[in-house]
Amino acid sequence: MDIQQNEDIRSRIRTIPDFPKPGILFRDITTLLLDPEGLRLTIEKMAAQVDGKVDLVAGVEARGFVFGAALAVRLGTGVLLIRKDGKLPGATIAEDYALEYGTDRIAIHADALVPGARVLLVDDLIATGGTARAAVRLLRKAGAEVVQASFVVDLPDLGGADALRSDGIQVASLVAFEGH
Amino acid sequence: MDIQQNEDIRSRIRTIPDFPKPGILFRDITTLLLDPEGLRLTIEKMAAQVDGKVDLVAGVEARGFVFGAALAVRLGTGVLLIRKDGKLPGATIAEDYALEYGTDRIAIHADALVPGARVLLVDDLIATGGTARAAVRLLRKAGAEVVQASFVVDLPDLGGADALRSDGIQVASLVAFEGH
Repeated sequence: MDIQQNEDIRSRIRTIPDFPKPGILFRDITTLLLDPEGLRLTIEKMAAQVDGKVDLVAGVEARGFVFGAALAVRLGTGVLLIRKDGKLPGATIAEDYALEYGTDRIAIHADALVPGARVLLVDDLIATGGTARAAVRLLRKAGAEVVQASFVVDLPDLGGADALRSDGIQVASLVAFEGH
Repeated sequence: MDIQQNEDIRSRIRTIPDFPKPGILFRDITTLLLDPEGLRLTIEKMAAQVDGKVDLVAGVEARGFVFGAALAVRLGTGVLLIRKDGKLPGATIAEDYALEYGTDRIAIHADALVPGARVLLVDDLIATGGTARAAVRLLRKAGAEVVQASFVVDLPDLGGADALRSDGIQVASLVAFEGH
């Protein structure tokens, strides 16, 4: 964990209190993305953390599409869109995950993955890990080998990165913020 | 309009009938994105169509994030996320647009744009142009100069590209499909 590292990334992330609800410190990566050097550095540093051969990058809707697509071009792979259920036009496989109240569902096209494909999972932020762990289950159900999960921001106090590691996934992030 | 060109892009786009409803031929770019060469060529060709200086790329949620982010890295700019209303944590400005039944709303952070910024609007597909024209109004309201709008797919029979041109926007696309 590189709590003290990547100050060039951290300093471009804005913190907005009480979004989406009171007591939450929202780590806002839109300011990082607006900055040409911030965007460039983010993709370069995520690429540098990739450990081993990757066949495909999978980005989680919607902010994961931003980093996933740019990273895929950088790595010379394609990009798989992990979407909210109901958005994909073809036959899908889906996976549910728990929200604070109720559940949500993510999906990929059933024919998107070659069995054994080495997939790098990408999203902007890992908090409790509910979405990321569901994405791993979904990718594995589709026959992929999830070789790594990469995030711009880790909120380690919320335990998502550790939970992913307990699922056997190598986890990388650029910056960590304490608290939530 | 390059109806006959970019067969390397066109051949990687899948058509799925009757999505999201009967009678619609859905042009599915996920197959293009999964292919490393398809993704690479798409971003290279979108970059080659950029006409003039661009300060910032704006991608429309959610598929516009995919192309917008990768193109921004390629052009050396930042990327602005044009989001569905309610997703952005900071103070926003928003714009409504008509759907078949009712309206929808897109938003950007109120402080995202430097007045006079030269913005390239990016999305995966232009159909009737409802979302893209709202995005142009929103960007202009925020003080931007929208220099061009770039799409992977144009459905010219639905008139969106012509409507954007009537709004004074230069429009580029990689492939066009007749019908809808």
